[in-house]
Amino acid sequence: MQFTSEQRHDDGVLEREFTLGDIPGILWTPGSASAAAPATLILIGHPPLGLRRMYPRLAARARHYAARYGFAAATIELPGSGERPRWPEIEQARAGLREAMAAGGPVGGEIIDALVLPLVEKAVPEWQAALDACLALPEIGGPAGYEGGVISVGVRLAAVEPRIAAATLFAGSFVPESMVEEARRVAVPLLVLLQWDDEGNDRQASLNLFDALGSKEKTLHANMGGHTGVPQFELDAGARFFARHLKR
Amino acid sequence: MQFTSEQRHDDGVLEREFTLGDIPGILWTPGSASAAAPATLILIGHPPLGLRRMYPRLAARARHYAARYGFAAATIELPGSGERPRWPEIEQARAGLREAMAAGGPVGGEIIDALVLPLVEKAVPEWQAALDACLALPEIGGPAGYEGGVISVGVRLAAVEPRIAAATLFAGSFVPESMVEEARRVAVPLLVLLQWDDEGNDRQASLNLFDALGSKEKTLHANMGGHTGVPQFELDAGARFFARHLKR
Repeated sequence: MQFTSEQRHDDGVLEREFTLGDIPGILWTPGSASAAAPATLILIGHPPLGLRRMYPRLAARARHYAARYGFAAATIELPGSGERPRWPEIEQARAGLREAMAAGGPVGGEIIDALVLPLVEKAVPEWQAALDACLALPEIGGPAGYEGGVISVGVRLAAVEPRIAAATLFAGSFVPESMVEEARRVAVPLLVLLQWDDEGNDRQASLNLFDALGSKEKTLHANMGGHTGVPQFELDAGARFFARHLKR
Repeated sequence: MQFTSEQRHDDGVLEREFTLGDIPGILWTPGSASAAAPATLILIGHPPLGLRRMYPRLAARARHYAARYGFAAATIELPGSGERPRWPEIEQARAGLREAMAAGGPVGGEIIDALVLPLVEKAVPEWQAALDACLALPEIGGPAGYEGGVISVGVRLAAVEPRIAAATLFAGSFVPESMVEEARRVAVPLLVLLQWDDEGNDRQASLNLFDALGSKEKTLHANMGGHTGVPQFELDAGARFFARHLKR
């Protein structure tokens, strides 16, 4: 993990850009974080739209967590997104998705599989490597949480990575059938956020995935509005959820 | 409103039993409540099982609200429940429900209507009278919230009573079709609590009712477990919801 820039905000939060191999990322740590009092880490996931485009929303979440709740937060670029090398396989799958949606028909399972499964396969080990690197810093301590989309990445990570002790998953977009099966193996406490009128996601599919998740403690928060309309108060609900479960 | 007993708890909360005409009720006020600093009121609804039987759960909620959040809380006995006069019409409807459930068949709409509609008709004006009486006390100020079941009582009250400015509704049990229509007229902010594996309630019917509610700001919190298994942390979520919306 190589830090490439560093900025201390007025709220005491230290924001550092880094690279992990060829993967760009950003780490936010609260002013209070030190080797004597390491901060608990939240990994902040996001859709594959590129870190630059997602930055305002990610930074708002991360700094709220850091400044108000004393969490550290980190995010990395997804494979094939932003400034990372193009990934023809995924671009082809996205073209297939656009075609299917333009045709107005239902999006077939093979399109969803082609779009999501390679991303999960490649991204999850990268998030695990980011977790390794962050937890190696003296000012950060485990266990960690994962929050956000891509929900299939979150499900796989929660299922396979024992250092993820709780997760907040953003319901949607397209979830492969095999991920619904995989969801049954998740055991950590979960908070699932669902936008009731999400223009790009099928509500019933999201409810089915919530139902399939294996965790004994799972809570669904459904709010009105479209995909990007998650209310501000859910950020505080999420922070309290992590505070309850990420105790050393 | 005639107070019939009074008890000051260690946490400063004053608990008073009262009668309103022939309706028994309980009022909890925080130690901080005074004419100079009146407490905001939460009406605490409950299923028609009798106040005595419901007391431990109602008192726990009310005292948590009063001691931790400075709310006043009040509840009254439902018609035909507890020590109030028997109500043969409702008892007959309950017998019809028990028969239908014992037969393992679906519970017909006419049974649900007979069980719920007369209760709503009679109970809602009583809750409004309780609201009148509580708000007339110098140590209590408006606007007020309603929390709990019977969900049809909460829906009607939220639809018709302008002093109810926010409501937390417990999803379930049996909701008449006409109440689903009535739900579209509710406009105040809502928090709906749904127990995902509620043994006595149909999940899809609860989701349909949530969908029908007319409020622009409504949030569904679904948790695992049976009807009485609402997690303790939802009490705090509910208090924060009321604190956001019940401002003078």
